[in-house]
Amino acid sequence: MKAYVYVSLKKTVLDPQGKTIHGALKRMGYKGLEDVRQGKYFELTLDGALTREEAQSEVQRIAAEVLTNPVIEEFRYSFAE
Amino acid sequence: MKAYVYVSLKKTVLDPQGKTIHGALKRMGYKGLEDVRQGKYFELTLDGALTREEAQSEVQRIAAEVLTNPVIEEFRYSFAE
Repeated sequence: MKAYVYVSLKKTVLDPQGKTIHGALKRMGYKGLEDVRQGKYFELTLDGALTREEAQSEVQRIAAEVLTNPVIEEFRYSFAE
Repeated sequence: MKAYVYVSLKKTVLDPQGKTIHGALKRMGYKGLEDVRQGKYFELTLDGALTREEAQSEVQRIAAEVLTNPVIEEFRYSFAE
């Protein structure tokens, strides 16, 4: 089973990296962009012996305790077989 | 309209950053993990005046030409209102 964890800066936190990418894309002539924000993305391959509930609680713990800085970041995750 | 672009290393490319995260999680006692790979994630806010087709072709171009290094990375994207 695979779990995908997406970590992004909270909406209220300034994202200078995203702003730089936005500025660069504008200068390069790409149109129609209003904002860019960058985040991180983790692909976790889980032991097939885990039940869906165990996998969910383990991924939730890993995301909340290790992969995310709760002061400035938030996360969401999804599963795929 | 929002577009989400996910950039990850190709399967055949070694991911030392992911390996380090995997090792650290194992040492911290998290169980059931077989592999970890890390990627990047971009949230693009698009001009509402774009049609879905225009948005799709613009995001495809931005992802392929700028956000991804085609030698070692691949991307996928999705849209949300």
